[in-house]
This record gives sequence, structure tokens and C-alpha cells, in this order.
Amino acid sequence: MPVLHDAYPSRVFDQPQLLPRRDPVVYADRPAGGGLSPDQVAFYEENGYLFLKQFFREEEVDVLLREMRRLAASGLRQGDEVVIEPESDIVRSIFRVHALSLVFDSLCRDPRLLQMARFLVGDEVYIHQSRVNLKPGFRGKEFYWHSDFETWHVEDGMPRMRALSMSIALTENNEFNGPLMVVPGSHRHYVACVGRTPEHHYLQSLRQQEYGVPDDDSLARLVAEGGIVAPKGPGGSVVIFDCNTMHGSNSNISPYPRSNVFCVYNSVENALQEPFGGQPPRPESIAARGSFVPLTPAERGFVALAE
Amino acid sequence: MPVLHDAYPSRVFDQPQLLPRRDPVVYADRPAGGGLSPDQVAFYEENGYLFLKQFFREEEVDVLLREMRRLAASGLRQGDEVVIEPESDIVRSIFRVHALSLVFDSLCRDPRLLQMARFLVGDEVYIHQSRVNLKPGFRGKEFYWHSDFETWHVEDGMPRMRALSMSIALTENNEFNGPLMVVPGSHRHYVACVGRTPEHHYLQSLRQQEYGVPDDDSLARLVAEGGIVAPKGPGGSVVIFDCNTMHGSNSNISPYPRSNVFCVYNSVENALQEPFGGQPPRPESIAARGSFVPLTPAERGFVALAE
Repeated sequence: MPVLHDAYPSRVFDQPQLLPRRDPVVYADRPAGGGLSPDQVAFYEENGYLFLKQFFREEEVDVLLREMRRLAASGLRQGDEVVIEPESDIVRSIFRVHALSLVFDSLCRDPRLLQMARFLVGDEVYIHQSRVNLKPGFRGKEFYWHSDFETWHVEDGMPRMRALSMSIALTENNEFNGPLMVVPGSHRHYVACVGRTPEHHYLQSLRQQEYGVPDDDSLARLVAEGGIVAPKGPGGSVVIFDCNTMHGSNSNISPYPRSNVFCVYNSVENALQEPFGGQPPRPESIAARGSFVPLTPAERGFVALAE
Repeated sequence: MPVLHDAYPSRVFDQPQLLPRRDPVVYADRPAGGGLSPDQVAFYEENGYLFLKQFFREEEVDVLLREMRRLAASGLRQGDEVVIEPESDIVRSIFRVHALSLVFDSLCRDPRLLQMARFLVGDEVYIHQSRVNLKPGFRGKEFYWHSDFETWHVEDGMPRMRALSMSIALTENNEFNGPLMVVPGSHRHYVACVGRTPEHHYLQSLRQQEYGVPDDDSLARLVAEGGIVAPKGPGGSVVIFDCNTMHGSNSNISPYPRSNVFCVYNSVENALQEPFGGQPPRPESIAARGSFVPLTPAERGFVALAE
């Protein structure tokens, strides 16, 4: 049954619905700050994403790439932290990298990233989720369209839209290797999906999305309004996007791997409650609920750490 | 066992091999003709493809689109001519459209296309294969990298490289809807694949390629040498590509369908023999062997036909 006081009901209706966003996009009380210009803030508010081309230096990217490869080769097996490509044994994603690696911890607490996150969310933040997506060449599978928030709300109990992702490219994102695609402006609409969530759905859904999927008509409406954008650039580029921005990516048959680190920052005022879908919560590796202590800037940069 | 006098052995070795092309690319005895400029001919010879942006008028595209939709809605079921998307009932491809439709017959015999085909192949031509790929929005699946010739040689018995495809876009090809990707220069190398061909392989292979697949190392070498190009443009654009040009396409989760008509022209001197893989030939709908009579230019344009 629908929860009466749920601001963002989903997977409870027979028909999909396009509901309005009930939360701010930028929570800051001033037009610029956190290292972001007024234009950048306005762009993010309007479009639900911001592209920072070549934000990190090549030297920094090299450190992160090496750390990713070290983790992927460290004998982690399919389990809470590790997701394997369907139909192959290749590591697709590693979750909770900020807890598994000092380098990625330091990246998530990089002062440059942290101040942007705090500014946009207008509050202290903690890491709701972190991961690397390796998306290998030749056999990288698509990620179908989704709003992170829909899942985080229904399956993890994130109450409101006051979180954002930063995707840090570790390899070039080009038109051939299935770059992240976002639908500008989609963050102002909430696509309430049909259906229900099966128990232990997360075991499958991270490999290939089948439930809680936005419907064709809603997607077509969002794209008709805002189009599609695929930010492209060298490793070290950063895409910041709102928790409710519709995004996805096509497959990657090119020889070029497309590897990214994701850090998801959530306001400490927006900490997880019981999942709104009424199922048991997903594991800590995917949705942190063990601690909502504010992040502090890293004392040592990740390049220094790796030396 | 390898056929000793096979110029292009494949699926007979334990290890993949990169063999040289043993045939011309352009068979004409003069530097230009058939409506193609010397630059265009030189580009095709060098790169193995040629992009003709907006070759057909909007009015012509409309006629072809209507005809494609009419065919797709005409109650054709999975069978020799019709391929359905894996995991859904959506029509993915219809083969032999030049025999199923007067409009597509007239398109394949369009004097502008026919004269280019004849010039490049240096001979009279016939239709080896024709099809429409509907590649719907949201759920269009990828086509993995392949050289058409490898399959046509092994499974259909095409002796030499003296054929080409023309892909006529019926919808816009953009960076989001899984456009055709080609590897420039790859047509000068023949990737001999490992393994053998199971009987009745074609029933599966057209839905999802699993055998006769080029290996990662060969693909990486070809791409390192020539890069990847994805010609993009409005409906009505034409890509001409050599039978041995490595090509493929990523999935399409965008709402934009990517529909194309393919006409494959083969020299009448290069007519099919017994398949070089030693299996029974594939059906007529996929590889014509019923008649190798030279094509004649259409007497009525397909726009006039549709009126």
C-alpha cells in the first residue's frame, strides 16, 4: 500500500507517474561558493549536472587508475562489494572503495570535491555510496536509464533529494565507449515507477536492471524536453549530477575501457531511514547507514598517500 | 581441416590470425566514375568506407520509412526473413526486403546507388542480401564487431572480396542511438577467427553473435592503427562500406530509433559457391544463391512507386 506521507512514492502504482520535485536543487543560501562560479551553480540548478573537464591532473589520474587496478586484481570475489559482468567473470564494479582504500578515502575527502558537495547540498555531508565502475572494453554492458534517488528512496530509505554524485573519469570518455548520458532538466521531475520490489532484488539489479525501471513514455517526455548530453573528455574530468537526474549509458564494444570512480555525497540532515518500499535495507556496501558523521577534508592528498 | 586453396581461411585455426587482403578494394580501371569524385574513390580505397551525408531527400526518406513500418506491421513472424530482439517481441531486422517490397526493390536498383556499386566493384552486380534494421529506441541491442566477408565466405561461400554494403539511414544517426562504427583501414586485413561453426548457427547468430567472432587482440590492433569512426547525420545519409571493413554498433537505450536499410551488392563474377566452412548454406533470405542476374536500374523511382 502507498505510504501516505511519502513525498516520493514509487513502485506502488499501477501506472507510471511523472511527479514534481519537492526539494531544492541547490541548497546554498548564496549564488556562488565552494569553488563554483555563479554560472556553474546556475547551470547545475537548471540542468541537474555540471561537467568539469580535466579537473584532476594526469598525475592524479595515474594514481587513481593504479589503485583501481590494484583493488580489481586483489582477489575480491563476487559479493557485497564486487559486481561481476553478466555472462563473464570480469569485475564490473567495486563498491565502498572509500572504506577499502586509503587512496579512495582521500579522494572522496579531497578538499576541492568536498567544498563543492557541501555548497550544493548546503550542509555537512557524508558518503552514502562510493564505487569504481571498470566498464571494460569489448564487453562493457549498458546501464539502463535511472534516477539514483528513486532507488535510494525506495530501497535504502533516503528521505529527500539532498544528495549528489561525483563521477571522476579515470579513462577518456568518448563517443565510442559508452559514456555517461544525462537528461538535462530531468532532475525536476520524479518518475514514479510501476510494480513492486522483489526481496533481495539488489543482488540482480546491479548486474542488469529489471525492476524499478522508468517507463518509455516518461523517458520520452523527459528527453523531448531536455535532450540528452554525454559529457566527453580525458581522464580526470568530473561530472557532478543531482541524485534525481535521469542517466544511463550504452554498451561498450570499443577496445577503450571506461573506468570511473563515483563518490555520492548526502546531507547529514538527510540520513537514511527505513526503506520506503517496505523491504529490508540493502547492505552497507551499497547504502551506508552505519554512520552519518560529517566528512572532514583529507589531511593528506591521495597522490602523497600513494607515494 | 583447412581447405588448402582457400584464400581466406577462418574458423579452422586454434589461434586467431591477421591475414593480408588478397583482393583489390576498388576494381574500377579509372580514378573516378559512377558519380564518385577522385577524392571520394581514394578515400574509400584508403579507409574502406565512404559517408554520403544527406544523400537522399527528406521526401524520399519518408517513403522508405513508411514502407519499413508497413512491412514491420504486416504480421511477419520470426522466421527466415524476420529477426526478433532477444528478450522481447520487437522486430529487429527484416531480410530480403528487395523481394518483399517493390519500394525497396526500386531503392536497391536506384540508378544513383547502382552506378556507385558497379564502379567500385568494377563489374555488374546483384543483390547478395538486403535488409532493414529497425534498432528501436530504449531496447536496441548492440551488434558486435565483425567483418561481413568472414561470415559470407565461411557460411555462404562468397569466394573473394568483391562486394560492398550501402547502409541508408532512415532516421538520424547520432551519438546516442548506437550508430554504425567502422574501423578505417581494417578492410586491408582479414581476421581469421578461431573455432568451428555449429550447424544451424545462423538461427542464433543474427540475434546475438557468439561464433566467428574476431578476437580482442586483433580488434585492438586494427583500432590502434585506424581508430574508430561513427558517421553521423540525418535520415537519408548513406554509408558505403567494403565487405571486409570491421564494423559494429553499441546498444541504443536512447528514445531515438535507429533504422537503416542495407543493400549488399556483389560482383556477378563473385557469385556464391559452396560455403568454405563446409556446412550447408544459409537460407536464400540471408544469402542469395537463386540467381546472379545483373541488376538493372529501376525504371520507376521508389517515390513514384509509392504514390
